Amino acid sequence: MDLQRCSINSTTVRGLGLSELIEAVSGRGIPGVGLWRDCYAGLRISTAANQVRSSGLRVTSICRGGMFTHRDDEDKSRSADENRRIIDEAHAFDAECVVIVCGAPVGKDLDVARAQIRDGLDALAPYAQSAGIRLAIEPMHPMMVADRSAITSLAEANDLIQALDHENIGIALDAYHVFWDVNYPSEVQRASGRIYAVQVCDWVVPIQGQLTSRGMPGEGTIDLTAFVKHVARAGYDGLIEIEVLSDAWWAVDPETALDAAIRGFEAMSEA
Amino acid sequence: MDLQRCSINSTTVRGLGLSELIEAVSGRGIPGVGLWRDCYAGLRISTAANQVRSSGLRVTSICRGGMFTHRDDEDKSRSADENRRIIDEAHAFDAECVVIVCGAPVGKDLDVARAQIRDGLDALAPYAQSAGIRLAIEPMHPMMVADRSAITSLAEANDLIQALDHENIGIALDAYHVFWDVNYPSEVQRASGRIYAVQVCDWVVPIQGQLTSRGMPGEGTIDLTAFVKHVARAGYDGLIEIEVLSDAWWAVDPETALDAAIRGFEAMSEA
Repeated sequence: MDLQRCSINSTTVRGLGLSELIEAVSGRGIPGVGLWRDCYAGLRISTAANQVRSSGLRVTSICRGGMFTHRDDEDKSRSADENRRIIDEAHAFDAECVVIVCGAPVGKDLDVARAQIRDGLDALAPYAQSAGIRLAIEPMHPMMVADRSAITSLAEANDLIQALDHENIGIALDAYHVFWDVNYPSEVQRASGRIYAVQVCDWVVPIQGQLTSRGMPGEGTIDLTAFVKHVARAGYDGLIEIEVLSDAWWAVDPETALDAAIRGFEAMSEA
Repeated sequence: MDLQRCSINSTTVRGLGLSELIEAVSGRGIPGVGLWRDCYAGLRISTAANQVRSSGLRVTSICRGGMFTHRDDEDKSRSADENRRIIDEAHAFDAECVVIVCGAPVGKDLDVARAQIRDGLDALAPYAQSAGIRLAIEPMHPMMVADRSAITSLAEANDLIQALDHENIGIALDAYHVFWDVNYPSEVQRASGRIYAVQVCDWVVPIQGQLTSRGMPGEGTIDLTAFVKHVARAGYDGLIEIEVLSDAWWAVDPETALDAAIRGFEAMSEA
């Protein structure tokens, strides 16, 4: 796939500071970055935002908001404050969306968690709307249900955005989280017009932990060529982030990792 | 839950040989066992079957058949032979079903894998029928899609048995594989009358590998009381197997593990 469609998520090369990230990405002719908050954590937001803006890079996402599940009102209010802060940051960066990781159940009751998530999104949407920021719900792989998100399929996320009916709430679609699902292609079509971020990485066995066992595109078993075809058919023409959480790749020099990511991206065929 | 509803899957206490398993289970007043083939691998089938039969224990399942995905015709034929052998064994044990683990894609194409699975089941069903053996498709957790089964949700398994329409093909329902799914309760109802095996264990984070990171009932985050309620509402009144694949528990004396399993089972409330 053409690198003009590529965005590099900062966590893929998390050894780089923000200015190094900007330099490495711009220097390779890539037009965008996705930013995890840790990559600008030590900087004043306006300074960091100016750095990115003057580079001309698009900011395809800020990761992450959400975590709506809570034990009590204090928890709930802390999470709401944090989410408004993230939206302010996304606004400063002129980011295309905030990725929403919805949160895992506090106890065993997934229904309660799902209700808290729906209510939390409903309450947050107007604030995001007034800041001109889209919220992109990331349905997450079911192996993360107990520690990241009770929203475990694209169908469930589509149902959620349909029920909420705020135009600034849509989907962050990561191949890693949805490829296993026999219905994901039709659900990608259903999400058409509401896909606010697209991410790729690969599924490498054996899985070692829920979070950081991912591979660069092409290293694993996901048919990413089919994935980007489904995404194109749904009308998505934005950038596609390479987001790879990987203990193995984090142990490698980030510039080397970045080159591997780019080779994998280029090897994905376009529709 | 009453131990009269309990069956112990041999892999939960895999340090025990078949006769030790029979003694340990019978001695605790439990009416059934599920058998992985490794627990009788060194024995003549008729001898092993006689041992179980004379104990009076029910055999709730034989694990496992399936693995229908294949690279070529030789692969396919080897898998078919093996599946007939397993059915013969299940017949010898007078087992209530053979658990079917459908198989992972050989390459990246899940559609091909799913077609091979459907065809393999369709071809096997008559042989199983003539032996009086039920085939219980186990939808598996999506984290196993690349190494165990392309059938990753209960909805997909229900669609599959509906499409195949052989009365001896049904579901092996393991809480671990389905609990994450917002639709699993309604899909359990949909499977009513076709649930041929039910298994419990628990989801313990962090996950360490796809296969052997499970906990005893009550150790993790699955609402097993809700699970057995859904199962009861669907009309299932058979035994419920405790099947725990766990590196941690396998490192413990099997009799101790068995007692822990039983305590967890008893702590699940009935509907």
